[in-house]
Formats: sequence, C-alpha cells, structure tokens
Amino acid sequence: MAKFIPLGDISSLLQRYASGEIAPTRLVEMIHAEIQNDPNHVWISVLPLESLRYYARQVEVKDMSSLPLYGIPFAIKDNIDLAELPTTAACPAYTYTPTHSAMVVQKLIKAGAIPIGKTNLDQFATGLNGTRSPYGVCRNAFNPDYISGGSSSGSAVAVAKGWVCFSLGTDTAGSGRVPAAFNNLIGYKPTKGWISTRGVVPACRSLDTVSIFAFTAADAARVLMISAGYDTEDIYSRQKEAYGFDFAAASHFRFAIPRKQHLQFFGNQESERLFTEAVRQLETLGGKAIEIDFEPFLEAARLLYEGPWVAERYAAIQSFYESQSDQIVAPVREIIAKAKCYSAADAYKGLYQLRSIKQHADEIWRDADCLVTPTAGTIYPIPAMLKEPIRLNTHLGYYTNFMNLLDYAAIAIPVGFQNDGLPFGITLAAPAHQDEPLLRLAHALQQAYCLPLGATGIAFPINNDFPELPDPNHVRIAVCG
Amino acid sequence: MAKFIPLGDISSLLQRYASGEIAPTRLVEMIHAEIQNDPNHVWISVLPLESLRYYARQVEVKDMSSLPLYGIPFAIKDNIDLAELPTTAACPAYTYTPTHSAMVVQKLIKAGAIPIGKTNLDQFATGLNGTRSPYGVCRNAFNPDYISGGSSSGSAVAVAKGWVCFSLGTDTAGSGRVPAAFNNLIGYKPTKGWISTRGVVPACRSLDTVSIFAFTAADAARVLMISAGYDTEDIYSRQKEAYGFDFAAASHFRFAIPRKQHLQFFGNQESERLFTEAVRQLETLGGKAIEIDFEPFLEAARLLYEGPWVAERYAAIQSFYESQSDQIVAPVREIIAKAKCYSAADAYKGLYQLRSIKQHADEIWRDADCLVTPTAGTIYPIPAMLKEPIRLNTHLGYYTNFMNLLDYAAIAIPVGFQNDGLPFGITLAAPAHQDEPLLRLAHALQQAYCLPLGATGIAFPINNDFPELPDPNHVRIAVCG
Repeated sequence: MAKFIPLGDISSLLQRYASGEIAPTRLVEMIHAEIQNDPNHVWISVLPLESLRYYARQVEVKDMSSLPLYGIPFAIKDNIDLAELPTTAACPAYTYTPTHSAMVVQKLIKAGAIPIGKTNLDQFATGLNGTRSPYGVCRNAFNPDYISGGSSSGSAVAVAKGWVCFSLGTDTAGSGRVPAAFNNLIGYKPTKGWISTRGVVPACRSLDTVSIFAFTAADAARVLMISAGYDTEDIYSRQKEAYGFDFAAASHFRFAIPRKQHLQFFGNQESERLFTEAVRQLETLGGKAIEIDFEPFLEAARLLYEGPWVAERYAAIQSFYESQSDQIVAPVREIIAKAKCYSAADAYKGLYQLRSIKQHADEIWRDADCLVTPTAGTIYPIPAMLKEPIRLNTHLGYYTNFMNLLDYAAIAIPVGFQNDGLPFGITLAAPAHQDEPLLRLAHALQQAYCLPLGATGIAFPINNDFPELPDPNHVRIAVCG
Repeated sequence: MAKFIPLGDISSLLQRYASGEIAPTRLVEMIHAEIQNDPNHVWISVLPLESLRYYARQVEVKDMSSLPLYGIPFAIKDNIDLAELPTTAACPAYTYTPTHSAMVVQKLIKAGAIPIGKTNLDQFATGLNGTRSPYGVCRNAFNPDYISGGSSSGSAVAVAKGWVCFSLGTDTAGSGRVPAAFNNLIGYKPTKGWISTRGVVPACRSLDTVSIFAFTAADAARVLMISAGYDTEDIYSRQKEAYGFDFAAASHFRFAIPRKQHLQFFGNQESERLFTEAVRQLETLGGKAIEIDFEPFLEAARLLYEGPWVAERYAAIQSFYESQSDQIVAPVREIIAKAKCYSAADAYKGLYQLRSIKQHADEIWRDADCLVTPTAGTIYPIPAMLKEPIRLNTHLGYYTNFMNLLDYAAIAIPVGFQNDGLPFGITLAAPAHQDEPLLRLAHALQQAYCLPLGATGIAFPINNDFPELPDPNHVRIAVCG
C-alpha cells in the first residue's frame, strides 16, 4: 500500500477529490491502515474497515457540490455518541453502545463527513491534561514525552497527525482549547448552546459545549455551519443572535489582556516570549491592547472546581458513581467526591457569586472587543503531570476555566513554537454570539503567522478563504435610544 | 379634623394638588390620623408625623412639574428597606434598621413620592394568603372575614383602602398578584431584574421581583417608569430590551388560556363565571382565545415548593434560621426546613428540569401573544385558611407559582365581583421584556370594565391616560433572515 500522506485543511482535500487524485473509499482505507499504529494512544475505538468503506460509498454516489464536507474524515471524542461504536467516556465500566449518533455527528455525516473512530480523553471529560485515561496516556503529537492536553486529547492529536481533517471535542473547563494549544491547532469552543449536546455524556451540563479542532479557523467555521442549530431536545440549546460590531472587519479594534501581575507562565519564559509576540502581531492587525484587571476571571475560574459546580459532574453519572466509583480513575474520583460536600443552598449561593463576578467581568466589554490570553501558560512532561495531577491541572486551566461560566465564546489559535519545538497558542474570547468576528480575527492572525498545519509539516494553505456564514434567523440590532 | 377622603389614582391626586384643594403636608397629616385605626392589620410600622411632614415639605418647595410623583403617598412592604424604620420581614427577631432605603424607594422619593410606612406580609414573603404574620392576620379590604392574599398583604390593602395611591410589594411565587386580585387592584410584577432588589430581604434571590400595586394599569406604568433601571449592585439586574410586536396596539391579538380540564376554581362557581366573562371581554377587545396545554406551567409551579428552590429561602436567612428557627412561624419554618433535604446535585437537576419545562412552556409563544388565567381560582375565609395553611396556599399559587421560574412578566387585573361582593381578577402574562404591551392591554381592559377603584367606592377615572414609556436603550429588532 502507498505511504499515507497526512491530511491538511478541508479545502485541500476537496481539491484532491475534485482532481481525481484520490477517492473517499481509498482514503479511508489508507487512514484505517495508518492508525493501526497508535503509539500516542489517540484512539479508544475505530470503525471497522467495512463501515468506513460504507460511509465512503454513501458519499461517492452523491455529487460533490451537494455535500459541503464530501468525504472529509473526522474523529469523535469518546464522550460523543457514534452509532455502532461503544461510548466509553474513557471509563470501561461505564460503556454503553448507542443506537443513535449524537445530533452533531448526524449533521456532519449528512453533510458528507466520514467518522473514523472515537478518541481518548481524560475520563468523563474531567481534566485538561490527557493522562487521566485507562486507555493510556495520550501523548503530544510533537513530543511524546509531553502531555497532549485534555480532556479532548485524542481528538486534538488525531488532527495534528493529519489522520483526519477535523475532530469533535467537548469543552467545559478548557478541554477543547488546551489540547489545541499543545498540538498547534485551532480549538474552537462555540457559544454555549449553538451545537446540540444531545448524545454527549455530560460533564457539567449547564456549561458543556461541543468543540471543534481544525487546522484553520476557516475550517472551524465550515464545520460550525454544519454543526450548529437549535435543538428542541437539548435543554441548553440556543438560537444564534446577531453579534453587533464586527471587530474583525474593522481597521481598528481593542483587545483586553490581563495586567502583568496576573499573567502567569509558571516559569516558562518561552511561552511568555511567544505571548508578547502574539500581542504585537495583533497590534499589527489593527488591534490596541488594553490591560485589564483579570481578578474577576480568576475568581470565576476557581468556582469551577472549588465550588458547587463539581456537583454537576456527580449529577451526570450519579447512579454509576454510587455503584462503581472504584472504576473511576483516582483524580477524577477525588474531584467528583467533593460534590457531596455541597448542599442545594451552596449551589444557589454559587450561582449568586457567579452572577456577581460576571457583572464585574463583563465591564471589560465596554472598552474591549475581545479578550486575549495565553491558552495555557505552560506545558508539562508526562511524568511531572502524573506526579502532581491536581495542582498542575489547575495551572493548565488558569486561562480557560472561567469561559463557559461567564458565557463567552472562545477560540484557541497556534502562534508559534518554543525553542524546544513544542507549540504555543493564545485564546481570543468574546461574549456569547460573537463567534463570527472571533473566527474571522483568528483567520487573519493565522494568515499573518502562516504556521505549518498541526504536526504534519504541511505548509499553511495559500487559498484559505473564510466561508460565508449564514445570518442568524433573528438579527438583533443595537439602536441608541 | 376633616373626614379623610380615600385616595384614588395618581392623576386625580395631582389634580387636587394643582387646584390647591389640598397640599402634601395636609394630606399626610390626614393619612397619619386615619391609619391609626387599623383593624385589618395593614401596617407593621408607620413613619412618625414629623417625618411625614418633612417628606411633604421637601416636595412642596419644588415645582410640581419637576416631580412626576409630586406628593404621592405610597406604602412599602416590610421586606423592603426604608431608612429610619425597621425592616422586620414580619419576623420581630429578625428585625434590623437599615441606614439606606432600598434603591427603588430612593428613586420614588426622589420623584416626589412620600413613603407612609411599612406593611404587613407573610413572614419572609413566604405565602400567598396573608395569615402568616405575628403582626396579625391581614384582613381583606372588602370583607374582614376573608384573607387579603399575600405575601404582600398590607401593601395591597393599604391601596385598596385608599390610604395611599400605590404601594410596593415583592413577588416570587405570586405575592404581588394574589393580593391584588383579592382587593380589586392592579398587581404588576415586572420583568425580573427591571427593578433593583438592592435593599430587599431575599425570598428566592434568583426569582424575586419588586412589584407594584395600583388602582390602574396606567398608574402602574407611571410607577414603573420611575422605579426601573439597571443597577450594577444588583446581581440579577437587567437592562430593558425591546418587546417586538405590540399586541395591545393591534386590532387583533391572540391570548392563550388553559384547557378546560386544567382550569381550576376549587369549587368556586362565581370565579368561573367571572373568568368566562373576562375571556369574552378580551375577545371584544380584538383578542382570539387559544386553548393550550397548561401542564408544563403546572409542572414549573410545582418545582417552586416541591423542588430544590426552597433552598434559596434557606440561603437567604441561613444564619438567622440556624440560631433562631423557633422565631419563625410554623408554616414558613416547615417550608424552609425542607431545604436541608436537597443537595447541590439536586439543585442542578432542578435547574435542568426547569430548562426542559420552559422549553415546552415557551412553545405557546409561537401562537399566542399573551397568557390569560385567573389570578387565583378562589378565595378563602380566614378560619379555613388557618386550618389548612399549606394545602390552601398551594391552591392560591396554582396560576402564579410558575411565572418567575419561567421568566415571564405578569399583571393582575380586577375583572368584577362575586355575588358575595368579593373581587375577582385575571392575570395577563408574556415573556420577559414584553411589559409594555401587557400594561397597555390591562389598561384597555380596565377601561372596558370601568370598575370602581379598590375598596374606596371611587368611580374609575374618566381621564385615565396611559403614559408615554421611554424606549429601552438597546432596541432589539427581529428581522426575518
């Protein structure tokens, strides 16, 4: 069999299909062969070759122009249902085999995308590091001695390796962003409720989002267009709303960055240097940096694991936890066990505290169009992570834990490499529904950086057009009264 | 001293002032004398005559045209702070004396309104009947053998008696609506967050609203204009948003009513007759009745007392409850005690359940512009109420308990009298921010009925203009895309 060529962005693969260079069936056969060798522990399960060929043939009988994701292979985090394969949430004892795919997976398949398999994760999506899985520590795509980030570990590495063009993760505390930063990818966490979580194992149900890993912001936007949509069966589903000012299209915009004393790199001077460079790059694009008080964001971040929200993780798997908590990996069990310390009154008091914090945090939007932070302040070697699984995980969430609590959309963007070759990324965030300008600014930044794609060595695509996104049904216009 | 003439609507009193018939100082002196006799147990405390004169003089030195509520006397439920008088929440052991008035009280005083005193309530605003107070059972303004409704009992009766032109209540489960129905008044519960709750003793902090009792919907709108406004110190404060379709101005509108089998009058054929007449009256105004499945609303209503939300009531007075629960009246203590049965996981599961119920309930807004129900299905004599304080209270909340949980605005409107002379009312409800059309429709309905004001015997005012309400700062316009 010919040597497998890593995949790049979606448009490039569509061009290969259009030119007749390869067909979906042949591609999925090559992917299937390639991923049999999986030293990074990316996969928990892979569809049988016959199923892959079936999906490919379903696509091939259709007209390319009728399927926006014609034959595009993708990976699915193993807390998102794919009919036929078991859903494990990285906990073998918890495993069930769903009869239906998750709503988002159904939509992608209908648009021509081909699911390859289910990917490794921090158990029950609880963690930001990729070591909390009985299916093996998921290793970084650039250096296997380092963590991949988590909890959507395998989904990130599968893309970074060029085995798929994009993948689905989930993001509650940062699970869709940290692994993107550590594997030189886009990690996009849409506005909460835009993508249905029907068929997803909950982590914190009020905060969970399905996230997208892709090589480019333009690809993330393409996948979003297919994935998003109101779902009457998802209690947290939301209609899109118009976003107001498109700061990405403006010649000048303002971005908030944490004040010096709140910028934490945990001793990593390389990430500090790369962050400073990224700020400069954003200024080159027309941005004006505004230093802000980051304390309200850090306060919100602390609520997630040091407050009553851990009870949502318990509520999500309550009967399993009560009968088989010994089947849960130690750090995850420890976190969920804390749920029992909180009463309903504590839960409401947590909600009041969050409202108050959000009121303060939201004040930055009077002056800033978006917030810019490192995605993670540093990265850790696997042995160090295993030695201090809770403390170092907290470091990884320093810039991410507050995002869903505060109801912001966010996108992690690669912005260069440390001198040891490991990637570094920043995150742009904005209030809910401002996803489009966020994606467009990420697109502009990627074009300025022109970094190679993931760990594939493929150069950044020249013809990387940002897709036309449809208007939301209900446009809300701000009128000065 | 001349005999006290009961007050009517705000415009009528402003006209009396303008004509020189009476001045604010003279009026408050007469009110003070009149309310010394309080067989209904309306007041918990009244401002000293000197304070009343002080407030009146502050008004008299100003130009009438500069104060929209020039010299308008009002009453304040005793869970809302008025500087100088103690706040008891109808629990003597809980009492504190605030240094500042509640934000809403400050705004009203600044607009020229004169506070008279603090009114009786169901303790900690927990109840809908008016019997749960150590300051005496608050008696109905029409028949002292009957309940006044609660928890804002005294605030309703003070207006019904014509002692003040309007009053402030609070409304979590229906406390601002049920007493309005039982005393022939408007009881308006604005969109949650429009009126600041700073300086209000919380009941369920995530659900509490300040409410307005008035003789007319136009007066309620006048008081709203002064009272509403974003407050950075109120965590549940919200900016007004535009309401879209103004169904009150349309020649045709659609109103939802519960299906026959969900309409409960608890054996009261008079209220059934009056409700049927009100529906007919709304049809005369251009409305088309649509029967709906009321079950999601009833489900939401049950959550309030049979779910984890009771923990909010506990959280509101936790340290007091822990040290002096014996000072709490029995039915209220029983309700709050249930809080301890709920864990944080239960609280989150309650939130999930509510999201799901709201998703179903909100489906009525595809077909209906507003929801119309009885405000309460029936009224009870005081002895009957005291005999079954929990079960009959549940009956009183049948049409009200869901409102704040579902984030709707609502207005209770008097629509006639039973053959025994007791008043009956209906409630109009609509999604948050649709207060203006609700108030306008209430206004139209009142003009059609032309009922006398409260229990004063004063005829409905002929020149009862609805005020011009200011546009919200941020107008949101729905555009079909």
